[in-house]
Amino acid sequence: MFSLNNSALFTDFYSLTMANGYWKRNLNESAVFEMFFRQQPFDGGYSVFAGLGTLINELVNFSFSEDDISYIKNLAVFEDAFIDFLKTFKFKGSLWAMDEGTVVFPNEPLLRVEGSLIECQIIEGLLLNIINFQSLIATKACRIWLASGKGNIMEFGLRRAQGHDGAISASRAAFIGGASGTSDTLAGKIFGIPVMGTMAHSWVMSFDSEEEAFDCYASLYPDRTIFLIDTYDTLKSGIHSAIKIGKKLTAKGKNFGVRLDSGDIQYLSTEVRQLLDQAGLEKVFITVSNDLDEYIIETLVKAGAPVNSWGVGTKMVTGAQVAAFTGVYKLSARLDGKKAIPVMKFSDNPDKTTNPGVKQVWRIRDQKGEAVADILGIDGADEINTGQRFCFWHPSADYRHFFHKIEGSASMLLNKWIDNGVLIKEQPSLAEIKAHAASDLDSFDSTYKRLLNPHIYKVSITENLRTLKLEIIEKYLGSRNS
Amino acid sequence: MFSLNNSALFTDFYSLTMANGYWKRNLNESAVFEMFFRQQPFDGGYSVFAGLGTLINELVNFSFSEDDISYIKNLAVFEDAFIDFLKTFKFKGSLWAMDEGTVVFPNEPLLRVEGSLIECQIIEGLLLNIINFQSLIATKACRIWLASGKGNIMEFGLRRAQGHDGAISASRAAFIGGASGTSDTLAGKIFGIPVMGTMAHSWVMSFDSEEEAFDCYASLYPDRTIFLIDTYDTLKSGIHSAIKIGKKLTAKGKNFGVRLDSGDIQYLSTEVRQLLDQAGLEKVFITVSNDLDEYIIETLVKAGAPVNSWGVGTKMVTGAQVAAFTGVYKLSARLDGKKAIPVMKFSDNPDKTTNPGVKQVWRIRDQKGEAVADILGIDGADEINTGQRFCFWHPSADYRHFFHKIEGSASMLLNKWIDNGVLIKEQPSLAEIKAHAASDLDSFDSTYKRLLNPHIYKVSITENLRTLKLEIIEKYLGSRNS
Repeated sequence: MFSLNNSALFTDFYSLTMANGYWKRNLNESAVFEMFFRQQPFDGGYSVFAGLGTLINELVNFSFSEDDISYIKNLAVFEDAFIDFLKTFKFKGSLWAMDEGTVVFPNEPLLRVEGSLIECQIIEGLLLNIINFQSLIATKACRIWLASGKGNIMEFGLRRAQGHDGAISASRAAFIGGASGTSDTLAGKIFGIPVMGTMAHSWVMSFDSEEEAFDCYASLYPDRTIFLIDTYDTLKSGIHSAIKIGKKLTAKGKNFGVRLDSGDIQYLSTEVRQLLDQAGLEKVFITVSNDLDEYIIETLVKAGAPVNSWGVGTKMVTGAQVAAFTGVYKLSARLDGKKAIPVMKFSDNPDKTTNPGVKQVWRIRDQKGEAVADILGIDGADEINTGQRFCFWHPSADYRHFFHKIEGSASMLLNKWIDNGVLIKEQPSLAEIKAHAASDLDSFDSTYKRLLNPHIYKVSITENLRTLKLEIIEKYLGSRNS
Repeated sequence: MFSLNNSALFTDFYSLTMANGYWKRNLNESAVFEMFFRQQPFDGGYSVFAGLGTLINELVNFSFSEDDISYIKNLAVFEDAFIDFLKTFKFKGSLWAMDEGTVVFPNEPLLRVEGSLIECQIIEGLLLNIINFQSLIATKACRIWLASGKGNIMEFGLRRAQGHDGAISASRAAFIGGASGTSDTLAGKIFGIPVMGTMAHSWVMSFDSEEEAFDCYASLYPDRTIFLIDTYDTLKSGIHSAIKIGKKLTAKGKNFGVRLDSGDIQYLSTEVRQLLDQAGLEKVFITVSNDLDEYIIETLVKAGAPVNSWGVGTKMVTGAQVAAFTGVYKLSARLDGKKAIPVMKFSDNPDKTTNPGVKQVWRIRDQKGEAVADILGIDGADEINTGQRFCFWHPSADYRHFFHKIEGSASMLLNKWIDNGVLIKEQPSLAEIKAHAASDLDSFDSTYKRLLNPHIYKVSITENLRTLKLEIIEKYLGSRNS
């Protein structure tokens, strides 16, 4: 597993200054934090939750190295006793989370952390960094995959990704969201993702002729040849060289592909398909690349461009115009012994006000298994069962609500993964996570998956949670106005 | 130095399949590759070249681990003799590059790599990944820093950066571009960047009252207290708690700050400034954050918002709507012994056609030291000197050109850093790189630095390079039309 080499220093500096404060006050004070996001990325109708496996591995190995400790000491901000405390610091808290690959919506807790204030606070940056990025990319990849009609998506993002982990973690997340392989060999090794690739323009240019370049490649890799045909001129040169050399492969019973990397893909792929077919090469496949995203792919698919696989790089591994997932991590309760004292954050921006308390999320499905709505309730207090007629409240606590009889199922989405620092659940393989994402997506109506102006999936809060929230608001406003 | 633990596997898989091909053909064949970019990010007028220090450290340590080798073997794509060759593979090529922090423009080579085709190809992904990302972020940070009037920019991006290196490398690049510190403690340790931070809403919420929370913090960190005043209500609660507790600090001769993290910054900062001044706290500083970028900061500065420092996160460390730098790495010559055979890539997209040959970049300055234009010429063949009347050709090789007498200086921007695998130049410190970026920027007229619709800086090619390019085009078109 790729890791930070267990450097617990990958944390916002204020987590350490606050940790020192918590440590001085009372080491045993506990708290509950929840991670949720405020807004779907890409103006979309859903997100795919990803990064949990990476996070779990970091948390169970979370510690400061000797080197980290000397650095902290040299900052001359903290007293020695606190630094000694950090030396043996481990994450001994508990983690609840949705299954990785689950389709998720704004305002619902994706993860819940229970532990000392110090533990909860010190992992904030790590947790948000991992989940925000991988969820962004899994979501983007899923949009691209669906736009291609669940086609063959090759992730080619390494060279313009945001740093090496921007590439490596993106390969993992893109695979979860729908990519079938990656060009990043290191990601292939770390995660067991199939590695893929074609050839570069420099390969073609390093030979005296295009035909020579193709011939050399085909004899080296008769089982995995994809000719890059746009180095000189796709229609006047590249496709003819590919047909000529490729026929040597088909004569031996091998198939091959051609790749377009510039020009108008719809026009060129149609022309190239025709030339291939005329040459009796109906089985030869066409791969395209060149700054693709879900919008371009959807347009090409709808226009009938004869494309068999898609090489998608920069826009998939960075999120393109939406470069960040809006996940936040907020204190939702303080624990006084076993008793939870719900807290909430007010804000001058109303949409930054949080939902208080220790929460669970239920997903309501109809009898066909199709998702109807999600409900946020208070863990332990709320019970949501099939057969129940249920009142759904809008999560921003205005007065909108509706009643719905639960006829299919109501399943809890948050499961406990780490109990007091110990991993207690077997982690799924990456292939299992990918399969879960795909099947979860299938349980949502297509209207939620439209690229443009999608249907908004309902996320509601229970009567209990609504009452709690209103009580806290009332108490706070009361005290402030008195 | 943060590194990939020397995993040479951080490469596009096609680099390995092509390397195998080059290895089989002729191990000693050499080539020249150049990295350049096609378009300024952010619709801006300049970019700041960054990442060189990181790249050099990776290149001089470039090798495959035993683990990497077993992985490659298990792929069952390559023959044993080639795998043996990889076992002892090192980067023995040479690297020319501009100084890190240099202000750069489209189409000019920022780096030049000379080595065996294998060496040049296998480092492509690594080189592009590092330079593309760090240049993107250094440029973004510089835009933000200039928009603030060269103010105090704190980089707070860890939690929404693209993976851990998306955070760590971004801290490095943002510091080069103008940030004065980072919240990322690990980046602080790795690069010696000052670490900074305030407090979280959870700190305030974990106390029974805001005043208690502030009091505890102020007594812990009397020399570095910044109160976060928007947890409940900035103007009705936060600022009053800050003034009350802060006065205990000023009574001891200490200063402090307040931080706004939501609401309208111009309105709130003005009100808060007034309340502070009325309380006799004229020296207390105001820090703001909340999804800031260069556009918002410029607007606030122009409106006279009394802000003393800026916490900038997501949009600085991801590039926001422009999430990738468009750098590419292209073969520009093959070497036949000592003789360079220039090559160029044609393309169905005319702007993807490259400039051939082994090139150098000259920066022309006037007598006051102000930058006038950059010139791309052929290294070794072209000479550009002060006093010369020079013909500047538009780099896309149309017929536009103009004459200019060089009255200041003409300096070569590409220097040799690595000679046959050995580092031959002392690497500057990060502070020196930052200073170089700042002074280089000062040598450009402000019209190039406007956020909106900036003046386009001239990048020209020499007569020699233009002739070479036209000859190759003619030869190719001739052969194709014959």
